[in-house]
Amino acid sequence: MNSFGQKFRFTTFGESHGVALGCIVDGVPAGVEIDLEFIQEEMNRRKPGQNKLQTARKEDDKIEILSGTFEGLSTGTPIAMVLYNGNQKSKDYDSVKDLFRPGHADFTYFHKYGIRDYRGGGRSSARETSARVAAGAIAQLILKDLNIEVFSGISNIDGIKSEEFDWEYAKTSEMYALDKNKEEEQKNAILKAKESHNSVGGVVSLKAINVPAGLGEPIYYKLDSVLADAMMSINAVKAISIGDGIESISLKGNENNDEITSNGFKTNHSGGILGGISNGDDIEMQVYFKPTPSIFLEQDTINVYNEDVKCNLKGRHDPCVATRGSVVAQSMLAIVLVDMLLLNMGAKMTHLKKIYS
Amino acid sequence: MNSFGQKFRFTTFGESHGVALGCIVDGVPAGVEIDLEFIQEEMNRRKPGQNKLQTARKEDDKIEILSGTFEGLSTGTPIAMVLYNGNQKSKDYDSVKDLFRPGHADFTYFHKYGIRDYRGGGRSSARETSARVAAGAIAQLILKDLNIEVFSGISNIDGIKSEEFDWEYAKTSEMYALDKNKEEEQKNAILKAKESHNSVGGVVSLKAINVPAGLGEPIYYKLDSVLADAMMSINAVKAISIGDGIESISLKGNENNDEITSNGFKTNHSGGILGGISNGDDIEMQVYFKPTPSIFLEQDTINVYNEDVKCNLKGRHDPCVATRGSVVAQSMLAIVLVDMLLLNMGAKMTHLKKIYS
Amino acid sequence: MNSFGQKFRFTTFGESHGVALGCIVDGVPAGVEIDLEFIQEEMNRRKPGQNKLQTARKEDDKIEILSGTFEGLSTGTPIAMVLYNGNQKSKDYDSVKDLFRPGHADFTYFHKYGIRDYRGGGRSSARETSARVAAGAIAQLILKDLNIEVFSGISNIDGIKSEEFDWEYAKTSEMYALDKNKEEEQKNAILKAKESHNSVGGVVSLKAINVPAGLGEPIYYKLDSVLADAMMSINAVKAISIGDGIESISLKGNENNDEITSNGFKTNHSGGILGGISNGDDIEMQVYFKPTPSIFLEQDTINVYNEDVKCNLKGRHDPCVATRGSVVAQSMLAIVLVDMLLLNMGAKMTHLKKIYS
Amino acid sequence: MNSFGQKFRFTTFGESHGVALGCIVDGVPAGVEIDLEFIQEEMNRRKPGQNKLQTARKEDDKIEILSGTFEGLSTGTPIAMVLYNGNQKSKDYDSVKDLFRPGHADFTYFHKYGIRDYRGGGRSSARETSARVAAGAIAQLILKDLNIEVFSGISNIDGIKSEEFDWEYAKTSEMYALDKNKEEEQKNAILKAKESHNSVGGVVSLKAINVPAGLGEPIYYKLDSVLADAMMSINAVKAISIGDGIESISLKGNENNDEITSNGFKTNHSGGILGGISNGDDIEMQVYFKPTPSIFLEQDTINVYNEDVKCNLKGRHDPCVATRGSVVAQSMLAIVLVDMLLLNMGAKMTHLKKIYS
Repeated sequence: MNSFGQKFRFTTFGESHGVALGCIVDGVPAGVEIDLEFIQEEMNRRKPGQNKLQTARKEDDKIEILSGTFEGLSTGTPIAMVLYNGNQKSKDYDSVKDLFRPGHADFTYFHKYGIRDYRGGGRSSARETSARVAAGAIAQLILKDLNIEVFSGISNIDGIKSEEFDWEYAKTSEMYALDKNKEEEQKNAILKAKESHNSVGGVVSLKAINVPAGLGEPIYYKLDSVLADAMMSINAVKAISIGDGIESISLKGNENNDEITSNGFKTNHSGGILGGISNGDDIEMQVYFKPTPSIFLEQDTINVYNEDVKCNLKGRHDPCVATRGSVVAQSMLAIVLVDMLLLNMGAKMTHLKKIYS
Repeated sequence: MNSFGQKFRFTTFGESHGVALGCIVDGVPAGVEIDLEFIQEEMNRRKPGQNKLQTARKEDDKIEILSGTFEGLSTGTPIAMVLYNGNQKSKDYDSVKDLFRPGHADFTYFHKYGIRDYRGGGRSSARETSARVAAGAIAQLILKDLNIEVFSGISNIDGIKSEEFDWEYAKTSEMYALDKNKEEEQKNAILKAKESHNSVGGVVSLKAINVPAGLGEPIYYKLDSVLADAMMSINAVKAISIGDGIESISLKGNENNDEITSNGFKTNHSGGILGGISNGDDIEMQVYFKPTPSIFLEQDTINVYNEDVKCNLKGRHDPCVATRGSVVAQSMLAIVLVDMLLLNMGAKMTHLKKIYS
Repeated sequence: MNSFGQKFRFTTFGESHGVALGCIVDGVPAGVEIDLEFIQEEMNRRKPGQNKLQTARKEDDKIEILSGTFEGLSTGTPIAMVLYNGNQKSKDYDSVKDLFRPGHADFTYFHKYGIRDYRGGGRSSARETSARVAAGAIAQLILKDLNIEVFSGISNIDGIKSEEFDWEYAKTSEMYALDKNKEEEQKNAILKAKESHNSVGGVVSLKAINVPAGLGEPIYYKLDSVLADAMMSINAVKAISIGDGIESISLKGNENNDEITSNGFKTNHSGGILGGISNGDDIEMQVYFKPTPSIFLEQDTINVYNEDVKCNLKGRHDPCVATRGSVVAQSMLAIVLVDMLLLNMGAKMTHLKKIYS
Repeated sequence: MNSFGQKFRFTTFGESHGVALGCIVDGVPAGVEIDLEFIQEEMNRRKPGQNKLQTARKEDDKIEILSGTFEGLSTGTPIAMVLYNGNQKSKDYDSVKDLFRPGHADFTYFHKYGIRDYRGGGRSSARETSARVAAGAIAQLILKDLNIEVFSGISNIDGIKSEEFDWEYAKTSEMYALDKNKEEEQKNAILKAKESHNSVGGVVSLKAINVPAGLGEPIYYKLDSVLADAMMSINAVKAISIGDGIESISLKGNENNDEITSNGFKTNHSGGILGGISNGDDIEMQVYFKPTPSIFLEQDTINVYNEDVKCNLKGRHDPCVATRGSVVAQSMLAIVLVDMLLLNMGAKMTHLKKIYS
């Protein structure tokens, strides 16, 4: 249950303040150039402490490959990657050792397992997502080889919507903003929340281009349902919308259908997915992140003995998790696409004949 | 890929106009009273042709159990259920045989498989969901035995929102409306769309009560991510929101966190799920259905030879799929909960000792 | 847990004396000619009552396809097949209703589930294997399209070994004998057991030709380990040997290694599998069937109240299950190979480029 | 495909001469005392270089836990374990870089992946089994908590059979011999093979006691079929026999059936498994290891250019892999049992009520 994917499958391990975090990526085809520098760059895009919008907590996030490559190429065997935990201040958590932080998984882990590693949220910490970014970087290397590209960026902070979607700009923006005209306003919302010891939510938009038609395995491994699964598994995500998803409920059928011409689809309300299968148009979706539950305002809670107590958090936390979350969401998108590419290979008998004769 | 669930796992088969549809439900614990009448009632709630809000197409939807029960009880072996197709008019589809209906899976199935059963959408037809309702009814029988209950209802049609959520009322409403004060207006929106040969979208709300804390398998089989997967796999669903999901992005952290007291959570913004695990509060979520793609207005499209043609649909279709979709969504919710109950049994060593000593 | 295979995956249902048995075959590539006549012929090869070596119990075993094909071709959607139970005499089992037949699954099903369908063994009956033969026939149709062929036959009955392996002869022999010179002696062993109300065991040998090198997914979905799994899941099978398996423990390394030349392997002690992956040589293995547990001699046993009683079976049973078992084993071999062909498609990046560019 | 198990699931990584090997063990219930000393002891039992019967190659095999425990207890989160490679002589393999060692996976990995890490067999090296022993040690800790115990030992070397099965003696024997009266003779067979630069095969016997009735998930995750799968996945294993498996084909039904009395089974020909489910008696099985393919006699082979060449191995290899293999087989047995214990928890509705009310 710590694995994701069917054919391109990764399994993660590690807690926020344990010895190390990492993953095993299984199902990487042999012959992919494993560009360690690219993987590290993706790790760096996610890592905290890069600017004042983020937690001041520094993490080194240096990725090490333990297996699965030989002379720079993937060999078809599992690629294990590890990230040793360095600058972790367990002491910050002494005060929350016995209580449940509101909005956090403390309560549910304790009830599920009867025990929890309280340091930094333990396994429920968003630090787990670093392993996904490592796996996602490998997925992106495969996609590049097939000329497919994935993008991500911030399209809403605290209700302030982006109006333009400049995917290239988002790559270099320190908050991964899609609309540079809205960036300042969105940034201010984050900083204001930070100053008032509070937090804000946001929306990540995702896109993939050059995706071949035919990806997605109906009925229960559809492209959109697996994307929903993938994104919802990211910490703090509470809603998912494919294409015009949420808005489409106020459209009439003739407004929402994408008419087709011999030159392609006229519109892309569907987000590039029909019946759970890619239609060759761009994949487009939105991922909704709630405001960070870790805030520095006093809150009511209980302790493990069910006594009413006050929660006063210390430590360093992102005032908005959507920004770094966009890197994670992009990674998950890449992972899902590679898995679907592999699964789809067996869809037609003509495909088998191409490989085996 | 036509299976859903890990421990409580069902596999469906069948096309809209094939010989039969059905499913195999695997993982049903032995000793559940299999109440065929209840299963048939659930089938009837989903079946079309019940009132003027729905397609005039009648389907008998009489479910037959082929295996897995003995003297009224489940035996622990797979329960197969079948639904023979009766009143299916394949001729209605002769005109769309070679073309792709906008908003439909025709295009993507054709590109994925190189072949498609065009009659009534074939496998991509929402008729497949009848098999889910049969499986979901069995899941509900298990839940009842554990005092857990699931509910569903319509909370939005064409942008007209429900303000009250009367879960009991929804059961008897012909459109499964949650708010009887909004029902008339919502109904009219559907009928108006029908008259104008068009369609509208809607939102289904779901609730589960008495769910024990601890359900959900982190990190990649979380309760919320599996629910998102389950719901997104339903035909026409394009967005999912858990708890206050979509709205939460405009809330501050202190507004969105659910404070805890020795008497329970003060609020339920989280929808009963923290860190992907149930917290013992009610599970609450919303499922967004796009307007039915089958409309009777002329649309531009292409045929299988990539020639521009006009699409003029005949046949009988629901002007709004959300209403009957609510029964399907409730079924999927029940299925996910049973799967999670089974998976969670191994979470603690003390659980094993309860069973094996 | 009633499913087998990863990409070519079938799920079976049904009890010996229930309404029907059958399966859903998922993952069949689109475009395979589904030759119903061939499927029925395979069913007939397995069905009982064909000659005096077998049980006198007649079963019609007429297979019906419910879904997944259109105009004679597979569509990529699940193929459901069903076999209605006809000539079943439940009364034969009244005498064993409360007791556990030695050597049977009665005891274990009762302890696992707390309930059992005692009629004809219920789910544990070898009648379940009819569904495998249906699925295996589809697998064989796929293999034929790729010029791969699977064979089976009897190589040992009650210790009487075959010396020659005539795979073509086995097809027409009424006991599927590989060595016609030993056939009479082997037949007599079966008939003698039958006359003395007893039973005998036997060995099935299997072969597959033209299997490409590279099939099998190390480390935990190896070709040989999945074959072992597949065969051991067949009723009455108690041992499996790949290539010279059992004999190899008395060979020295230099005797057992297959030396390689530019024209291929000099010998095939390995049974065509090295490191869990096919090497392009013939796949060869043996499957050991214990003597049928259903005998007509009085045996000591207990009833469900743990009281000592005598077991006196009535009914009709095969005096040797290996003969019809060979058809089932051949089916499972075909199924495993198709699954491995599909899985192997993603082994190399060059394969992906063949499909997606 | 580098994962094994459904609920207790481990995933391994690593090559013989890569940076490190290891595994992630998922599904460990929370609250198990993780006794690192015991895990290390099991590692030591498997590690090479302990005596003259084994390869002179020394491996340190010091296991390190990276995650999943807190204050000595499992937390229910994945337990990652790693083993850094130290004393590895890659140079030994320069001479075999371009050629395929007979009996090895070199040939098949090359054909499957188009590339291979030739150093020490890479991923196909039996060194991978060290990760299984680590996972198996955790499984054994769980079993102990439930009073279940697993045993292993050598019952045949080069055709020299053990006559007595002293499971306690085997634990301390340097070759894990079950019969001390045969040990000398068996040892000599190994040493003689070593001296003549050759190798011999052997048989490992396994036993588990106090296994509750009811383990095993019919029809396709039966206890015996999963054990066959598990054992066949171990390097050099070519045959599996459950209970009296191979011998049973020469027995009559009345000789092979285990009669039942109110005090239990009279005999245990079945090896404790009926219909794929444990019957409460001891689990007993045999695992057949071929002679080590790495021998130091000249052999014919080809290189990657399909040219005929001579293979002259250097390096250090076990003259008989069955001895250390017995530790691996015992580990796999423990793993399968824990997986089955977890899966069986949902077999009955009464089990669910024990946990959830």
